[in-house]
Amino acid sequence: MPELFTVLPPHEALQKLLTHLTPRVPIETIETARALNRVLAEAPAARSPLPAFPRSTMDGYAVRAADTFGATEALPAYLTVIGESPMGGAPTQSIDRGEALIIHTGGMLPQGADAVVMIERTQKTTTTEIEVMRAVAPGENVLQVGEDVKPGDPLFAIGHLLRPQDLGGLMALGLTQVTVAQRPRVGILATGDEVIDPHAEPRPGQVRDVNTYSIGSIVERAGGRAQPGGIIRDNFETLYQAARNLLDQADALVLSAGSSVSVRDMTSDVIEKLGQPGVLVHGVSIKPGKPTILAGCDGKPVFGLPGNPVSAMVVGDLFITPTLWQLQGCARPPLRQTIRARLTHNLASVPGRVDYIQVKLIERAGELWAEPVFGKSNLIYTLVKADGMLIIPIDANGIAAGEVADVRLF
Amino acid sequence: MPELFTVLPPHEALQKLLTHLTPRVPIETIETARALNRVLAEAPAARSPLPAFPRSTMDGYAVRAADTFGATEALPAYLTVIGESPMGGAPTQSIDRGEALIIHTGGMLPQGADAVVMIERTQKTTTTEIEVMRAVAPGENVLQVGEDVKPGDPLFAIGHLLRPQDLGGLMALGLTQVTVAQRPRVGILATGDEVIDPHAEPRPGQVRDVNTYSIGSIVERAGGRAQPGGIIRDNFETLYQAARNLLDQADALVLSAGSSVSVRDMTSDVIEKLGQPGVLVHGVSIKPGKPTILAGCDGKPVFGLPGNPVSAMVVGDLFITPTLWQLQGCARPPLRQTIRARLTHNLASVPGRVDYIQVKLIERAGELWAEPVFGKSNLIYTLVKADGMLIIPIDANGIAAGEVADVRLF
Repeated sequence: MPELFTVLPPHEALQKLLTHLTPRVPIETIETARALNRVLAEAPAARSPLPAFPRSTMDGYAVRAADTFGATEALPAYLTVIGESPMGGAPTQSIDRGEALIIHTGGMLPQGADAVVMIERTQKTTTTEIEVMRAVAPGENVLQVGEDVKPGDPLFAIGHLLRPQDLGGLMALGLTQVTVAQRPRVGILATGDEVIDPHAEPRPGQVRDVNTYSIGSIVERAGGRAQPGGIIRDNFETLYQAARNLLDQADALVLSAGSSVSVRDMTSDVIEKLGQPGVLVHGVSIKPGKPTILAGCDGKPVFGLPGNPVSAMVVGDLFITPTLWQLQGCARPPLRQTIRARLTHNLASVPGRVDYIQVKLIERAGELWAEPVFGKSNLIYTLVKADGMLIIPIDANGIAAGEVADVRLF
Repeated sequence: MPELFTVLPPHEALQKLLTHLTPRVPIETIETARALNRVLAEAPAARSPLPAFPRSTMDGYAVRAADTFGATEALPAYLTVIGESPMGGAPTQSIDRGEALIIHTGGMLPQGADAVVMIERTQKTTTTEIEVMRAVAPGENVLQVGEDVKPGDPLFAIGHLLRPQDLGGLMALGLTQVTVAQRPRVGILATGDEVIDPHAEPRPGQVRDVNTYSIGSIVERAGGRAQPGGIIRDNFETLYQAARNLLDQADALVLSAGSSVSVRDMTSDVIEKLGQPGVLVHGVSIKPGKPTILAGCDGKPVFGLPGNPVSAMVVGDLFITPTLWQLQGCARPPLRQTIRARLTHNLASVPGRVDYIQVKLIERAGELWAEPVFGKSNLIYTLVKADGMLIIPIDANGIAAGEVADVRLF
């Protein structure tokens, strides 16, 4: 007999799944240049300071700050220019009292210099002499050794999701390889005797597979790699074998089940047989997507999605996405973009259930409005026409036209 | 003599560039399954209706609605069950007055049926007879042929950015290939006698290349393909030849110029020689990033970025990203995620300039606060430590601690 499950609110359902997932995906070391959107599995450490030499932040003259003290336009300081700091090399000269060296932005300060005077604050009097018309403080217009990063400074924590500037920061320190979580491999099986490959021409009663592609894209967006396992007939042994093989080679599994009650029950039985503890959540108090199955099978997450493509997308977005980020050990997954918009129509709901309503966003007099895309809940083009999902919270019995609500953008 | 340029506000600068770009990138036909985040270059059309046959949305019985009129629990309608509609095939039987056919969610309605009674509203009296305890209206629990999409219905406009559900919707119609804009190829050249490959060990005065990687990642994020052209010495002819070769094979070019005035001028001269009309904007009223060059060279955008990695990132984000979406013909690029946060410190600014301040987001008593990451403007790790950029608008002379401002997330 199947265990009795209570339909859980979406947040509780997700927590129940996430707390059961102990193992993470394996880690790998890859080129930093290819690590955008990957999650750090080891904390890289700086072996050298950044900058590694005192650098000028201005075009001008490297000087001893003390030589400029008190300098004004009326009473400038006079310095002897003894040469130039070459870009990309160390200056061969050091400067002494009363001397200056031409320096460019990014150039290395010579021995003896502790500040840079901007060229705009100077005037040439002869080919080898300048007037300095404003004093500089020691360290002014200079990046000190290690001012950006000191050896041993914490750079990134484990679990950090790498952004464009992070790749730049790693490269600046010569950290050309990083150790990251592997992209979770997510097996996807479509089931249903009526489902066919989209490349084929359907006969009467047949429909093309949608979920392999929409769910596969959700997986890719969340850093995973979709591994489509094809379309499986509604037969326990066939489905179990296909699921077993796919899960053994993957880090997670999605079964996009047929919608009829008998097929849903079969999916649940197959999942129970895939590993321990098996089905954790059977039914979530959301619409659409109520007949969702969340399971942990020997440490790997397994999702039983409703076959209806709209429900499958909502459930994929709510449960698969955060699970994949957790598998990668991501400390702070990308924020789901949610905006506030005013509703154009009254929408009824039932307390105790979170409703997700497809809406188009329209601008009216400079304000954002959310207009429901009407149509039966299993029409994929209601999702295609929508910009996002308006959320009716669990305790509300609807939202009135003109009220403001959260819209989760796709 | 170089033309005299006025420093433009960022929005005007971008408009000036975008209006000068006439050609788009070439188009290509690819597998729909691999078209996530690509921009449609042709509008696909449905060749067949969706669904292609009348489908049940429930488990139950296909009936003639008229046979159920008036049925109640007290006075049910009695129907003869003559068979079952097979999943994935057309029913071989048609139903007549007083008859019903077992049907599953997604199954095809038989000839003669115009509605489906949910199984929960029926009761079996014998193996071939059911009681129907509630009337159904014609069409109830049925998806009509073409109810989702009719042949000729507009599906997507040209310029649409493909999302997970869009791939599903295309597959549902057998549109397994789509014609999209090619991903713009963006050449990236780093210049500077002091800049070296990050894999090398710098000698005194040398620094590792950062911008090739941070800007390359910005390009990838905006749908482009980064084509790094290496590090070029500060020599007009060398830089011109490298830029010429790279631009000829690309759709756009980024020169990450050295920061000294002489190198900046050289970059501008090189860009002028690359094509017509040449430099459009030389200087933008932003901080950091003022010495930005935006150019159109024979229809291709060319960017001269400040060498300072922080400025380069800000400028890349503000100008390269929207330009790449426009090159792809994207009607509605992904919204830049901006949130509101309360500032922890007073920040001064200068009216007439937009300031971008690196901030960390912190939560205090359930409210989001933006804490500036202090440090000289050219420290790459100020960007690494930041969650986003706080924007001080062009007309403000600062923001006081406690005030709320927009933060553009990375």
